[in-house]
Amino acid sequence: MFESAEVGNEIDKATYKKEEPKLRQALLSAQYEALKAAKFPIIIVVGGIDGAGKSETVNLLNEWMDPRHIHAHAFGDPSDEERERPPMWRYWRALPPKGKIGIFFHSWYSRPILDRVHGEINEDEFDRRLEEIVSFEKMLTDEGALILKFWFHLSKKTQRNRLRELESNKKTAWRVTALDWKNFKIYDRFKKITERALRGTSRNQAAWAVIEGTDPNYRSLMAGQALLDAIQARLAQIKTPPKLGKKSQPKSEKTNSHNPHEGRVRVVNTIDFSQKIDKGEYEKELEKYQRKLNLLLRDKKFQEHAVVAVFEGLDAAGKGGAIRRITGALDARQYTIVPIAAPTEEERAQPYLWRFWRHLPRQGRLTIFDRSWYGRVLVERVEGFCSPADWLRAFSEINDFEEQMVRHGILVVKFWLQISKAEQLRRFKERERIGFKKFKITDEDWRNRKKWDSYEDAMCDMVDRTSTEIAPWNLVSAEDKRLARIEVLRALCKKLEKLLK
Amino acid sequence: MFESAEVGNEIDKATYKKEEPKLRQALLSAQYEALKAAKFPIIIVVGGIDGAGKSETVNLLNEWMDPRHIHAHAFGDPSDEERERPPMWRYWRALPPKGKIGIFFHSWYSRPILDRVHGEINEDEFDRRLEEIVSFEKMLTDEGALILKFWFHLSKKTQRNRLRELESNKKTAWRVTALDWKNFKIYDRFKKITERALRGTSRNQAAWAVIEGTDPNYRSLMAGQALLDAIQARLAQIKTPPKLGKKSQPKSEKTNSHNPHEGRVRVVNTIDFSQKIDKGEYEKELEKYQRKLNLLLRDKKFQEHAVVAVFEGLDAAGKGGAIRRITGALDARQYTIVPIAAPTEEERAQPYLWRFWRHLPRQGRLTIFDRSWYGRVLVERVEGFCSPADWLRAFSEINDFEEQMVRHGILVVKFWLQISKAEQLRRFKERERIGFKKFKITDEDWRNRKKWDSYEDAMCDMVDRTSTEIAPWNLVSAEDKRLARIEVLRALCKKLEKLLK
Repeated sequence: MFESAEVGNEIDKATYKKEEPKLRQALLSAQYEALKAAKFPIIIVVGGIDGAGKSETVNLLNEWMDPRHIHAHAFGDPSDEERERPPMWRYWRALPPKGKIGIFFHSWYSRPILDRVHGEINEDEFDRRLEEIVSFEKMLTDEGALILKFWFHLSKKTQRNRLRELESNKKTAWRVTALDWKNFKIYDRFKKITERALRGTSRNQAAWAVIEGTDPNYRSLMAGQALLDAIQARLAQIKTPPKLGKKSQPKSEKTNSHNPHEGRVRVVNTIDFSQKIDKGEYEKELEKYQRKLNLLLRDKKFQEHAVVAVFEGLDAAGKGGAIRRITGALDARQYTIVPIAAPTEEERAQPYLWRFWRHLPRQGRLTIFDRSWYGRVLVERVEGFCSPADWLRAFSEINDFEEQMVRHGILVVKFWLQISKAEQLRRFKERERIGFKKFKITDEDWRNRKKWDSYEDAMCDMVDRTSTEIAPWNLVSAEDKRLARIEVLRALCKKLEKLLK
Repeated sequence: MFESAEVGNEIDKATYKKEEPKLRQALLSAQYEALKAAKFPIIIVVGGIDGAGKSETVNLLNEWMDPRHIHAHAFGDPSDEERERPPMWRYWRALPPKGKIGIFFHSWYSRPILDRVHGEINEDEFDRRLEEIVSFEKMLTDEGALILKFWFHLSKKTQRNRLRELESNKKTAWRVTALDWKNFKIYDRFKKITERALRGTSRNQAAWAVIEGTDPNYRSLMAGQALLDAIQARLAQIKTPPKLGKKSQPKSEKTNSHNPHEGRVRVVNTIDFSQKIDKGEYEKELEKYQRKLNLLLRDKKFQEHAVVAVFEGLDAAGKGGAIRRITGALDARQYTIVPIAAPTEEERAQPYLWRFWRHLPRQGRLTIFDRSWYGRVLVERVEGFCSPADWLRAFSEINDFEEQMVRHGILVVKFWLQISKAEQLRRFKERERIGFKKFKITDEDWRNRKKWDSYEDAMCDMVDRTSTEIAPWNLVSAEDKRLARIEVLRALCKKLEKLLK
């Protein structure tokens, strides 16, 4: 992979002087066009050997283009806020919005490569982490991101000469640190492992470009030209979208016939609406589980974990009431409720899952999502707010997301609150009757109700595809509100007890 | 201050049952109207004695109104990301956007009060912190925020009885912790100190409402009604703005005649444009100061500090070039460049300084603002983008902001790059001539140039009002680009050396 980057590629000064002004003008022009379109973010991953020109190239890109729309991120040791979330959190929070350019030094590749170089993980774990990266980048490109990955390379000999030269000059000796020589000693191992990383993560739209870093003229023009070509190609694509593909797919959910449930017992039908609980029993149980939950979250062991509780369900199923019975047991410092409404401008300019990532809890905390990332496979699917391709890929993206949480010690508890069609009607009518409840019922609720079957289909698919061993769905009969609340508390306590045992 | 909250205020069940539905309907309606207007954020500060109904009231507000537009924040121990920034940073990042409601438990009042209760700060320091809060809340209300501050109170006797009762019941004993009794022991001291805090911070539009917390009916209706009245009053004000006041003030800077510089030597005229540096000397000095800067930022002592470098100056004064000479000396992990362009939607929904607070560096880092919070007293003033009242109050807001940084160990270095009118013309023309520089010159630049004198007036005022001992302006002659770059590096190194000595 590195052979062609050790041959001594050079570009002479005259050529550079001729090409550079043309390239920078074209780059700036392309940058402004992309900014104006604001259709896709541009993500540039920069890696490579020390001294091969990573910083210099980034400085140059900043000089060539308008630096106000380029943000370079370099990641050192994570902060505790970062350590307390899954490893990818810090990269999610740094993603550029559509139209802008984000440059990532010491990106999501650093940790896996360094951990492997220093023997802290074995090959299997290394491969697993690379797979995680592949999924992440696939999600980004599926969301429309333009990803460029530059690896700047120096041959071992060039690196040795470079360090010696810098050191021998009094003026430049400060540029060489002890770490540089330490890194040089493991050059071969580093090269072998990065080669594996580069090969394992060069996929479709996110392939690595290895650039020889010895000659500044060469590496600058190469990187600049690759960036220019990629932006121009994407801009052209936007102007004349391919005839086939997404566009030809049905927009609405109704016409898709892949539903695997046809003829099978649907999970939604397994929910028993006949159970009830009387008021006395309810109050006893409520006190019991609120007490239990309170003590569990005060447990010292919980300080190394966190809970993400997801509430989904049909309109008027009683999500809010169930949530209040959880928070009623807790100190306000322990939890946050994240209600999912329409995304903000900043959120719309990011990949779908971005707005959920930004709300992940720190350790020792509970975050309750009142509606969640499942919106994509429920309302967005049924209402045709996104293409089938988008919600179909969402299943695996969601599973990835939840796996990252669980792997990090976060308990993911998902509740689906189900009521019968008749009970929903009763509650809607009650809401219309009672003054302060009127605001809780809108035309949209009535419209959604008409699509009851489509929502049930979507819900069944969702449970089938995302009820995993690590994050199963809890299907709760909410026909009796009180019973539902106890069920939710009980299930939450049970999972917490198991986690902290 | 607490007398009227110890008299045993109660509201009987029948009255509550009659009033509650009306109140909640009106609240919900007011909430939606405020949300739709999206003209002001609603900030509710909740404090008080444990068990006086803080959490319960907040839960109730969530139940009465639409919880999707209410965000409750409870602050426990700060994270390291928070500890590494000035104390108010964590509150800034939690401010609600216009139209929404933010509830703050354990707010900016907690730390000062607890520190004083535990004797960790003396009265003077306590008063200083209260003053800081007054400034903060004044800034918020000046920015249009509606602030409500509720203090829930219990008499000593009521508190004792309450704890005993809870403990004596097996079902509720878990609600009483050792901390509750510990707090009870210092009831008198706590009361005395909070009284001082409440008195000292009850100003104009951000006054405290002390509510007796013994009877849930009473405290709920009181808090709900106070909130309703405040929102309705503000909504009415928006519909029929006062005839006098802001509106009658001149919109443009030109007509304001308060300029204190008339007839005095203007700072801008003290800048010497005659100095120059030749290329050989420049390269020697550049290497020298880049080396010095690199070593200073690697200094262990710097890990307890941070640098905020601000660059302002006329168009084409060479800010970008000077910034690149700083970053050229550094590892990409050490610095971030924050270019200030038009605010995003999220930023526009927040107080002016919010978008700068969000970018403050962690410890051991350097953040460079390419244009900054001074935009308000420069371009916004000259172009009439904000009212004179807004930019006039900005001077003290900015000084407060910088004082908070400096007090926290952040080095604030501000550079004004000045060129002559003739030199600007030369550079503009050069930009128009050279292909890749064309993008750097726009009609706006030419328009700004026509207002040269207004910008100079604004700059002189700015330096006069914000060049403080703790964060003085560095006026740099940028007529010779090379000299300016060296000057900037030299000044930065000098301040850093002094800081780390």
